This record gives sequence, structure tokens and C-alpha cells, in this order.
Amino acid sequence: MEKLKPRTLSGFMELLPRPQQQMERMMEILRRTYSLYGFTPLDTPIIESSEVLLAKGGGDTEKQIYRFTKGDSDLSLRFDLTVPLAKYVALHYNELSFPFRRYQIGKVYRGERAQRGRFREFYQADIDVIGDGKLDIINEAEIPAIIYQTFTTLGLRRFQIRVNNRKILNGFYAMMGLSARCADIMRTVDKLDKIGVGKVGLCLTEECGLTPQQAGEILSFIAISGANADVLAALETYAGRNELFDAGLSELKTVVKYLAAFGVPEENFAVDLTIARGLDYYTGTVYETTLLDHPEIGSVCSGGRYDNLAEYYTDKQLPGVGISIGLTRLFYVLGEQGMLNDDLPTAPADVLVLPMTEDLAPAIALSTALRGAGVRTQLYTEAKKFKAKMNYADRQGIPYVIFLGDDEVAKGLVACKDMASGQQTTLPFDETLARIRAGLAEKNTGAVILER
Amino acid sequence: MEKLKPRTLSGFMELLPRPQQQMERMMEILRRTYSLYGFTPLDTPIIESSEVLLAKGGGDTEKQIYRFTKGDSDLSLRFDLTVPLAKYVALHYNELSFPFRRYQIGKVYRGERAQRGRFREFYQADIDVIGDGKLDIINEAEIPAIIYQTFTTLGLRRFQIRVNNRKILNGFYAMMGLSARCADIMRTVDKLDKIGVGKVGLCLTEECGLTPQQAGEILSFIAISGANADVLAALETYAGRNELFDAGLSELKTVVKYLAAFGVPEENFAVDLTIARGLDYYTGTVYETTLLDHPEIGSVCSGGRYDNLAEYYTDKQLPGVGISIGLTRLFYVLGEQGMLNDDLPTAPADVLVLPMTEDLAPAIALSTALRGAGVRTQLYTEAKKFKAKMNYADRQGIPYVIFLGDDEVAKGLVACKDMASGQQTTLPFDETLARIRAGLAEKNTGAVILER
Repeated sequence: MEKLKPRTLSGFMELLPRPQQQMERMMEILRRTYSLYGFTPLDTPIIESSEVLLAKGGGDTEKQIYRFTKGDSDLSLRFDLTVPLAKYVALHYNELSFPFRRYQIGKVYRGERAQRGRFREFYQADIDVIGDGKLDIINEAEIPAIIYQTFTTLGLRRFQIRVNNRKILNGFYAMMGLSARCADIMRTVDKLDKIGVGKVGLCLTEECGLTPQQAGEILSFIAISGANADVLAALETYAGRNELFDAGLSELKTVVKYLAAFGVPEENFAVDLTIARGLDYYTGTVYETTLLDHPEIGSVCSGGRYDNLAEYYTDKQLPGVGISIGLTRLFYVLGEQGMLNDDLPTAPADVLVLPMTEDLAPAIALSTALRGAGVRTQLYTEAKKFKAKMNYADRQGIPYVIFLGDDEVAKGLVACKDMASGQQTTLPFDETLARIRAGLAEKNTGAVILER
Repeated sequence: MEKLKPRTLSGFMELLPRPQQQMERMMEILRRTYSLYGFTPLDTPIIESSEVLLAKGGGDTEKQIYRFTKGDSDLSLRFDLTVPLAKYVALHYNELSFPFRRYQIGKVYRGERAQRGRFREFYQADIDVIGDGKLDIINEAEIPAIIYQTFTTLGLRRFQIRVNNRKILNGFYAMMGLSARCADIMRTVDKLDKIGVGKVGLCLTEECGLTPQQAGEILSFIAISGANADVLAALETYAGRNELFDAGLSELKTVVKYLAAFGVPEENFAVDLTIARGLDYYTGTVYETTLLDHPEIGSVCSGGRYDNLAEYYTDKQLPGVGISIGLTRLFYVLGEQGMLNDDLPTAPADVLVLPMTEDLAPAIALSTALRGAGVRTQLYTEAKKFKAKMNYADRQGIPYVIFLGDDEVAKGLVACKDMASGQQTTLPFDETLARIRAGLAEKNTGAVILER
């Protein structure tokens, strides 16, 4: 038979078993952490009606969307988890309790130009809190606490959650009489990290049509930096001139005030007036998170407060706040940077059982007993040489191999080799199990991500 | 703004938070059980190149496939998890260790005619063991043990794993000189449950062109039933006339022999000669699993042994054995039958913290402490009446509500209401935590599925 060359599409991550286990650990930590904060898991279809999914219009991303027809239906693959959430909340409004707190970890699709480290299918891990009509500001303060908890549980320490408030920005531009050009200006300022202060200034005058004085005022405003208290103090000097600005400042102060109570250390958190998030969608607190040793990656967790989640689907006012982690890209970058902890077990099993008896019943019973005790056990019965069997355990990093010969069966003992130390013991089942458990507990210490 | 009516495509399951939590529990049990048997998790793309995905040709399912172009690429959504596994193993052959044991729980797509209980997007939960060139028969005996473990952990007792061996069937038809018409005959016999013995007999003579005597012999062969030992004894009477038959009988005897060692009770397991599985793909042991009280559902977990997983992609001989659970359909049916255990907690949080103080810092610190102790905690700060707050906890089934007023803060106590009993205690944090933990442990006893 003629063979077809197997391949996986470019831009689609497909992991080998070992990194897949690392990815699973990361996902499990996200699920657990989000759950600790009272978020409920959600799972929406990957395919939606194009009419529903593109109600807002596609904008820049429209041509990236996987859109096709099946029968009479015009269908699209979701390109984020926010639009499906909006649809879900509008559709099930009467059956939900608000604030509605949900997390969703799922694949989304964007047909971007293929390029190293860019993915067309990738996981997003989102949390959102949706209010009915109103939503208390404390939710905006809790979000950085959740980011902090998530990232530290993953093993990161050297990261910074950068926070701003869109009302401060919009209020500031209103003070300057520049409300109409607000969106353009913010898009320009947003490029600061990429193109530098000089070019931003040039763009503000040449592209946004500001006077050099206006551009100067904006640049000196966004240059306000330092400790959080200092930034807030500097912002106070602008207070009293615009209501929106004052509201934003008050919100920002509340967020900062409660972050200490939430246990977020000062060094993992910064008020940063250059953060705007491109989307007009955000109306209050906005967030970006950067790895201090890898600023080139950009933000690994972003989001913010919005006033109207589902305005395309319902008259109900549904304000919310949410963040999104681009999990596939984060995982890829961590791997590239050598930051995934390779010392954590990634083997499919904790124990490989090698029967040395004609009758397999004792080995089967032993495997069943180990599994009953929660030990991941593979029974290996292939007709291979002893060395090949040991190689099999070794290649996969299976930490323990148990040999069960007639001798052991007769004596009620278990011979067990610790593959890392090479030490072999012949002990009763319970003692062997205790040794294995202690060893596994030790091997499982340590975080998924390692900083160097 | 004009609103667009939000909707979810028909044939796509989208669950409310409560059933979604039940689904998550089921998935978690599958992941844990599969892991206990040494299967490694895998995650392959949902989109594949059509050329690769349809290498085998689509057959009956081809017109159900979601196929479309994006740019120059002819793409398809996966319609099962087996073809992507074949591609994966062929592609990564040199990087894998064999036997390669993987599980995958993922969505697959089939554009079937929309109809109640039929899904176009649904989860399959698969395990497969792939050998390199050879694969020991013991793997075929282990599969029913895994099915048994999975189903009992989910809470089912009244199910039966029905096992047959294709070599026995093929050998039997060869004895009768009917090898050429084997596929037709099996397809006909496979309809036994649906159309009954009489019609099968008629089809065998009229459609498959057998003599009445041949049809009679087949019907009496597949009528062999009873205790497993009796069926095996009856099969012995056919032994010695065809090599393939004898090989199949020997395999079946091995499978049955080891099932007791694997801890599968006789009542959950039956040799059933009517099981053939439609696909030509299977070559040895085949499995179906039925719920005894709901035979109308058909098989909820099926699979078998195959000789050549990836013949379209590689010259390597890759025999394997695997099973698949149609998880979305199973979940749907269990819900319809009222078999999902509604007593297990499905709330997004274990505790709702209601601050009664001006300063939220003590409530935030308390929530952080609870989360640190592994208790899923939601801090509720919306400006609502007390009754609305209690309703919020009640509607979602949050089992504990904590009130933190100035009094409690001053005395270092926590007021906690058990929503089920109505009992309220005011105790130090540690004692409150101990009560909550004990209560949660009790509420979490019990299986996901309930039989009546």
C-alpha cells in the first residue's frame, strides 16, 4: 500500500508525552487555583454560528477566522473565549446567578501567518466575573490577587502585574480637550514598549495631529513612575479637574489599598500609566503581566474591566472584569527558555511491574493492589529481553520497577528497584508501598516552572 | 442598538454550571482511572489536513465530516481520536516507547442529522495500547479490567462488558467455507439486537445468499450462551477444524482466565458470540459494554484489538487494543434517566464570605486563609440586601456562609452558617475550618452516577 506522509499542520501544537504531562500539570494548577476563588468551569462549543460569533463585527481579526459552511449553516470556530461567554450569559441569563464567576480553559482558532511561536490553535485560560447591572470594585482588586496566586503556584516569582485604569486615561485626555482623539492616542501610547518614547512623541504630533505641547504633556503624564504610593501621589495633582479622572483615581486607590490585604507583595505589582490595552472594550481597571527576566515576551496575562459584556445580544447591562492567559504561547516560551522543571515526574506510570512467573495472576493481583493504593502502575508482559524491559522503564523515566518471581511470590515479598538510586529492596508489600509513596512525594516536590 | 438573538447550534452540548460540574467530575474520574493504569495523556489538534485525516477514505462518515478550506489548505475537523492517534504514532514513532499507552479525552465532530440525543460535537474518551510489531494478549485481558474500574468508580454496578474474538468468528465462517461473505454476514449478525433472530435468519438467506442450512448453523452458533465457562466449553466442540478459530479460542480463554485475577466479577462480564463490531479494522478481542437496566442505549464503551493502527502512514506494523467511551452521549443519557447524583456539591464555591465591616481587609484575609487551606471561597461584596446575598448562596448550593462583623473581628471569631442544617456557629478560625472540612468531606461522599 502506498503510504501518506503523516504530518501535523503548522501552527498547531502537538506535544510528545513528556511535555504533554508538563502542560497537564499547568492546566491542573490553573483549574485548581481558579476553583479556589469560586469560579465555576464552563465549556462552550468550538463551533458557533457565524452570525452570532461575528455579531460585533470582526475588525482586524475577521480574516483570521476559520469560517465555512456545512449544509445551509454559516459556521465559525471561536477566536477567543469572551464572545462565547457573552453569548452564554445572554442566552442563559435567567438561569444564572450574578455575579457569575466562570473559568474556561479551551482551544481557540486564529488563522494567523505561520511563524515560529505563533499558533493557529491555542489554549486560552480565562476567568471573568460578570455582574447584573452593577459590579463592585473589589472584584477589580481581587483579579491581581488571582494572577499572583496562579503564577506563584506555577513557580514564578519574578513577574510584575501592571495595573492602570482607563478612566484615568480617558479623564486625562478629556482634561486636555482630546477626548475625540482618545482612541488614536491610546493606540499610539500602547506602542511605547515597542518603539520607544521618541517615536511615540513623533507619532502623537504627526499621526494624531497633536501640538508639540500636548504631546509633551502626554509623555510627561505617562512617564510618571516609581513606587505605587508615589505614582498615586503624582496622580493626585491632576485631581479635581475631571469627574471621570477622579472616579478612576479613586478606583485605582481602592485596588492598590486592598492588594496588600490580598497578600500580593509590592514587588509583584505596579501602577503603570502606560498600560491601556488596545481594545475600546475596557472601561476601568486594566491589567498586564510581564515576566521580569523576559520582557520581550510581552504580557502573559492581560485583561480588564468592561461595562457591557453582551451588548450585541441583550439589553441587560452586564459589566464584568476578566483576564486571559495565552496558555499555549506561554508554555511554548517557557519551553524555549528552558524554564520547565524537568525534574518533576512525567512518566506515564510510577511503577512498572515485571512478572517473572509463568502464571501472571500474582503480578496482576499486585498491580491491582498498587492501583488501589493510588499508585499509577503498568503491568509489562511483552516478550522482551530483561535489558529491553529495563530500558523501557528508563527511557520513560518510570521511577520504580518491581520484579515478581516465584521466590518472591512464595515468600510474600516484593522486589523493587528505585531507578534513580539503583537501590533494590525485597520487602513485604506494605513496606514496599510505603517506600514508593515516600519517594514519589519527594519527586513531586517542586514547581512546574523554574526560574534561574 | 439592534440585538442579535443569542443561540447555540443544535447538536452542540452547552451545559449550565451545575451539570457542567457533574461532567467535570466524570472527566476527572476518567483521567485518574486511566492514569492509574499507566496511560499518558495526549492532546492532538482538532483540525488536521484533510489528506492526512481522510487517508483511509471516509466511507459512511465522509459526508458527515466538517471539511473546509482556509487559504490554500484543505482542512477537516477530526471525527474520532483514532485516526489522529495513528498519525501521531506514525509521525513520532522514533520518539515513543512501545507499548505506547495513551489516553485522550477530546471533542470530535460529525455533522449528523440533528436529532434529540445526537451530537455533532461530542467528547470521546479513549485509551489505546500500541505495540511495536507485537503486542501481548494480556493487554486484551486488561482492557475489561479498566472498563470495570472506570464504571464502578463512576458509581455503576449494573453493567456488563461483553467480549468476543473476531478470530473465532472469522475461523467459524472459514470452517463453513463462507470466508468471502464474512463481512456481509457479520454486518447482518450485528443487527441481532435491533431486528431479532427471525429477521437476521431471513437476511442471511435472502441478502447474503446463504442456504437455509448455513443460516441455521450460524444462528445456532451465535445462540451459544450461558455462563462463561459453558460458552467456552461449547466453543471447544468446534476446535481443531480451523487454525484461526483455535487461535481465537485460545485468546478468549486467556482473557477470561485473567479477568478474575484483575478483579472483574463474573456478573460484569460475558462472552457473547453475537458481538462483532462493525469495523473490519478489528482482528482479535472485541468489546461492548451495556447498562443492564438500559439496553436501549446500546454500547456505552466499545473497542477491540486491531493489527495495524497506522497502515496508511507507515510500513511499521503497529498492533493495538483500545476502547472508546462516547462521553457526551453517555452524560446526556444519564441525565435523561435521572442517574446523575444531584446530592454531590456542584456549587462554584464551598464558602461564601459576607463582610459586614466598613474595612474589607479582615474579610479578605479570612478568604485568603480559607483558600490557603484548600477551601474554595468566594468573597461577596456586592451592595445587596442581606436576603439577596443569602439567596445567592442558596440558589447556587454554596454549603457555608460566613459573616464577618466588627464584633467577630474584635473577638477573633468567625460566624458560619451551615446552609443545609441552618445551624450557625461562632467559633475561632481553626474550629470553623475543621467543621467546614468535615462537612465537605461528608457531602463529597458518594458517586457521580446513581443507580435506582
